[in-house]
Amino acid sequence: MSRYSRDQTIRVKVGNVIIGGSDHVVIQSMTNTSTHDVNATLLQIKALQAAGAEIVRVAVPDKVALEALPAIVKKSPVPIVADIHFDSALALGAIEAGVAKVRINPGNIGSEAKVREIIRLAKKHATAIRIGINSGSIGGDHDQLVKTSLDVLSKYIEWFKSERFDQLVISMKSSNTLETIKMNKQIAKHYRYPLHIGVTESGVGDAAIVHSSIGIGHLLLKGIGNTIRVSLPGDPVKEIPVAREILQAVGLIREGVRLIACPSCGRTQINTEKFAKLVTEKLKDIQTPIKVAIMGCVVNGPGEAKGATYALCGGKKEGLIFAHGQQVRKVPNEDLVTALLEVIDADLKTTKEEPK
Amino acid sequence: MSRYSRDQTIRVKVGNVIIGGSDHVVIQSMTNTSTHDVNATLLQIKALQAAGAEIVRVAVPDKVALEALPAIVKKSPVPIVADIHFDSALALGAIEAGVAKVRINPGNIGSEAKVREIIRLAKKHATAIRIGINSGSIGGDHDQLVKTSLDVLSKYIEWFKSERFDQLVISMKSSNTLETIKMNKQIAKHYRYPLHIGVTESGVGDAAIVHSSIGIGHLLLKGIGNTIRVSLPGDPVKEIPVAREILQAVGLIREGVRLIACPSCGRTQINTEKFAKLVTEKLKDIQTPIKVAIMGCVVNGPGEAKGATYALCGGKKEGLIFAHGQQVRKVPNEDLVTALLEVIDADLKTTKEEPK
Repeated sequence: MSRYSRDQTIRVKVGNVIIGGSDHVVIQSMTNTSTHDVNATLLQIKALQAAGAEIVRVAVPDKVALEALPAIVKKSPVPIVADIHFDSALALGAIEAGVAKVRINPGNIGSEAKVREIIRLAKKHATAIRIGINSGSIGGDHDQLVKTSLDVLSKYIEWFKSERFDQLVISMKSSNTLETIKMNKQIAKHYRYPLHIGVTESGVGDAAIVHSSIGIGHLLLKGIGNTIRVSLPGDPVKEIPVAREILQAVGLIREGVRLIACPSCGRTQINTEKFAKLVTEKLKDIQTPIKVAIMGCVVNGPGEAKGATYALCGGKKEGLIFAHGQQVRKVPNEDLVTALLEVIDADLKTTKEEPK
Repeated sequence: MSRYSRDQTIRVKVGNVIIGGSDHVVIQSMTNTSTHDVNATLLQIKALQAAGAEIVRVAVPDKVALEALPAIVKKSPVPIVADIHFDSALALGAIEAGVAKVRINPGNIGSEAKVREIIRLAKKHATAIRIGINSGSIGGDHDQLVKTSLDVLSKYIEWFKSERFDQLVISMKSSNTLETIKMNKQIAKHYRYPLHIGVTESGVGDAAIVHSSIGIGHLLLKGIGNTIRVSLPGDPVKEIPVAREILQAVGLIREGVRLIACPSCGRTQINTEKFAKLVTEKLKDIQTPIKVAIMGCVVNGPGEAKGATYALCGGKKEGLIFAHGQQVRKVPNEDLVTALLEVIDADLKTTKEEPK
């Protein structure tokens, strides 16, 4: 049984975005507006794109949503994926409406014949298809679930193969993180299709972030996954910074600010949390890959400062500012943030103005 | 080169807690109060324990902190670890004061002779020692760092070996998640000492949670790690639920409530985020391992409900309550939370009252 890593997968064209076949992992999300409301949906799609989403999915639960699709597709700045359940006519309509991809669960769309009808129309329109199976939509015993899901998946894939359709993305999600990991490892062992990964219904607040980070992060570190969605309840725009941070943590993107802050301890001379939040906010629009360290004391401070692009390090009364490993200023602790921001600002300006 | 998994490590006794040699991964944290202030420190230690910390570390930066140690050790409900830098006299004093473990970085404590003095006294008092090295305290080129850190560590370990001291825990942390993972994999390849794992100075807010979850989660999934610390800036008590959630995600603890909620989409009939937060808050004290699903619609809802202990599922106007996979009530959407809590409450009471 061979194993297909991320960059060995088939390239699937989703509008102007490629999923698969390279190390660029695509961030995507899904609107939670009513798709009937074209303006609200477009507004959210634009907010998602501004945050960093490259593909956005919309639910198409009925005919009214279907009728809204052409306007959404036309005005969206990113490729649109239609999420369809139960009604194959909606999938056919979405393809005609010009979506870049449809997501279906072949198990709930009616019949093999109906799935094949969708495949043929998608082929004609060069529309990609995602087979999206959630363990929740299969149900049953957890122990048996991984095997059952894979058996079901392999049956569906045969339909696509016999239609000579390869613009296929696979997702197999569970609200159980370990199960999600196991299922995706198995899929990557057997198939060359790119994988869409995520932990579904992952919970609320920090718990959701923990589960998504571990599930997605572990698979990416194993070389598995071509596009990711972090599922959080509420405003989907919140999902994007988490997705970006996951990619940054596993070394798959290097842009933007990586801020590190020591957890405060009985040795800390400054309020590192307050400082870090302030600096994060001030630097949020910077795209240059820099590492900024906010250090509370002299134990790890100077060492960490050497590894960071910029650093501030609290002292007894006065603290230090470092740039590129060198100490550049010494100021009272209360002026550290201002001094750090001045140093970064001046330095990034200089870098920009340098002739290439 | 053999590989030592979690349960093949040496058992290290830290007061009444064992680190290593079993699948029970110990959650720990560190106070951020001034150790001079015995009452404030004890208050925080108790809050950490109530949240689920089994071991707590306190910074001992000076003689006044050292003098506070006996009172802290005596009244603490959990074993205390003294965090010492630069001054070996503080480490010796902490051992005399009765701490269960001292954490030192042998590279900053003065000399090999001074480290050996600490080892001998620790042996006499049956005090455990953690060698804690942060990449920040070594500094220098990132590419070279993993190798350098391991070379340094192996030198230190030789000192402990020649003193025939094996009550040793190792930690090697970096603010770079990938580096942390690489270093710990290497250590687990070479040594049977239990590993304390965490990503240090991991950032603020969601970013810190993402980095800690991936770093710690990935290592635990690889069978590496005997005790964990999630480093977050600010109140350390916030670290504990994140640590517990990490252990739950990787399948290492099963107690308490696992709440899953679908991310809302254009198909959702209820405010899943609001419902989920409300239910999470109401169930926070339950220790019985149950899975509660808050589902917005009929696509994944009923399937997921089958896999959950309890579930609510929004409908057009009326929604459904499930218990143990069976539909038990149908109520208007606005009454779903109350109905769910009633069902859980009644059910858990029945379970408790059942004779064994």
